[in-house]
Amino acid sequence: MLKVIEFKKNKLFLLDERYIPEKKQYFVAKNVRDVAFAIKNMVVRGAPLIGVTAAYGMALGYKNLQRSAKLLLNSRPTAVNLRWAVERILNLKEKNFKAILNEAKKIHREDKKLCEKIAKNGAKLIPEGAKIITHCNTGMLATAGIGTALGIILYARKKINLVYVKETRPRLQGSKLTAWELKENKIPYKIITDSTAAYLMKKEKIDACFVGADRISANGDFANKIGTYALAIEAKFHRVPFYVAAPYSTIDFKTKKGNDIKIEEREKSEVLYINGKSIAPKGADAINSAFDVTPNFLVTALITEKGILKHPDAKKLKKLYQGAT
Amino acid sequence: MLKVIEFKKNKLFLLDERYIPEKKQYFVAKNVRDVAFAIKNMVVRGAPLIGVTAAYGMALGYKNLQRSAKLLLNSRPTAVNLRWAVERILNLKEKNFKAILNEAKKIHREDKKLCEKIAKNGAKLIPEGAKIITHCNTGMLATAGIGTALGIILYARKKINLVYVKETRPRLQGSKLTAWELKENKIPYKIITDSTAAYLMKKEKIDACFVGADRISANGDFANKIGTYALAIEAKFHRVPFYVAAPYSTIDFKTKKGNDIKIEEREKSEVLYINGKSIAPKGADAINSAFDVTPNFLVTALITEKGILKHPDAKKLKKLYQGAT
Repeated sequence: MLKVIEFKKNKLFLLDERYIPEKKQYFVAKNVRDVAFAIKNMVVRGAPLIGVTAAYGMALGYKNLQRSAKLLLNSRPTAVNLRWAVERILNLKEKNFKAILNEAKKIHREDKKLCEKIAKNGAKLIPEGAKIITHCNTGMLATAGIGTALGIILYARKKINLVYVKETRPRLQGSKLTAWELKENKIPYKIITDSTAAYLMKKEKIDACFVGADRISANGDFANKIGTYALAIEAKFHRVPFYVAAPYSTIDFKTKKGNDIKIEEREKSEVLYINGKSIAPKGADAINSAFDVTPNFLVTALITEKGILKHPDAKKLKKLYQGAT
Repeated sequence: MLKVIEFKKNKLFLLDERYIPEKKQYFVAKNVRDVAFAIKNMVVRGAPLIGVTAAYGMALGYKNLQRSAKLLLNSRPTAVNLRWAVERILNLKEKNFKAILNEAKKIHREDKKLCEKIAKNGAKLIPEGAKIITHCNTGMLATAGIGTALGIILYARKKINLVYVKETRPRLQGSKLTAWELKENKIPYKIITDSTAAYLMKKEKIDACFVGADRISANGDFANKIGTYALAIEAKFHRVPFYVAAPYSTIDFKTKKGNDIKIEEREKSEVLYINGKSIAPKGADAINSAFDVTPNFLVTALITEKGILKHPDAKKLKKLYQGAT
């Protein structure tokens, strides 16, 4: 199995996702600045993987933890796993290199186990011969394990008839990363433009949509890759079950509702250029909000390591994690 | 003003839209085969413009009209304006070159006037300081005049605060063609990925969505560029008015409802490659349905040359065009 993230010889090796599926190349982070760069520039992405990466970043930046924390927290604002991991390191009693690295490795191992539990729980929701729509990438390239939403699909592979992969403009994580993972795992898939999902829901029986999350607020609203909200509306309209899969580290009980989540605005060039070539008139303006927020009432169920939470709300979420946060 | 289509010296000159906005280059069609090629390969596109182009194609292919009709009708299946124009030529009493060319020129002039009437009618629906979302391209690059949906926007330019241009994957007619037209006309616009429309409807006040149509069935359901249906659902969900603009030549009274419309499936490479470069794993499969169908109940109003038809249905449409078809 391909290693997506590995700490060895005092360096952090990250599979550079900017080059997938063309080539497998590693980005080597020697210090916390390199790690912040890797997160900001999406060498690695996906909320859980960002969290694990940040934890190792803290180990590399152990000499000045406050500065390292600031650097990492400023790299990307939306995925709460980043803050969660950084705070977990900051809350350690012992803060020497070895202790921090051990905690980072623990977070790493934990994330892998969280993925497995989510996969097992979510697989129950997949019927035999399922046709599924997924958005962005939520697999082994987005976590330190099998994945969240895509992890469920990988785990339930024998029941899968077809996965429709939304390409996920502007960065095309669907056609580049998710398609690659499905191909590697020999699961049948077809790539669709983001606009095609609604058409398919009308045309044929889609059994479910599975997506991940970058931050879930206390009431179950959640931020995820731009296009998730549109998909949730389309699923509601067609009565297709809409499932969100994420570990507890993605839940932000400090944020009451989705509209309070800060949405990252990225470079317009990601929309206006593809493969380095302009697709718009000179001087064109664009909007490149990296995420959108989906309200809880569009969520059929939230799948976590603790089980399946139907129609999540503040009360149910609080109950599920009582004492755990 | 740039000429998009012109017949001179027994040749048809078409502004080659495959190169917009990079360069202005003309495709010269010397015979009906060239014209069929131009339609099939989207040298020109947009239902009304396809109709006008096909009429000239019949003039070039006057020596064997049945064969010419067949060639043209096989080029693209969804836009009914193509069939409408071809049948109009076939129904001429005199079928010599001059008579056919005259009829093609008449269709050309008529389309220009239809655009003007649609623009005037639709402009009434645009409030002062409007923020509008549009999909694909429905302007002077899609018709022989100012356009349909985009024609309305151009006509009402003084009332426009901002146009959000959906890029319209896979062929990017939004970011390539619509953005170019808006820029040329100095109307403020921002390009968005197709997935961003729903997010904007939630985040800020969008006054209306304006789209065109490739075929409107007798009950007001309509086929249009893939992504139109998703936009209509999103508009309904956010109570944003959703307007469809098209001339009578786009209405197909022979087709009862939207699900009877044949949807063109195009080459998968349009999804899997951008600017000639692969964006997916080797051997990836894709779906490239060029159009989708939006049911009449999602349409706030249909704007035609005859006026504004709120909540179109079979009865209202029949009444509007009684005696005209």
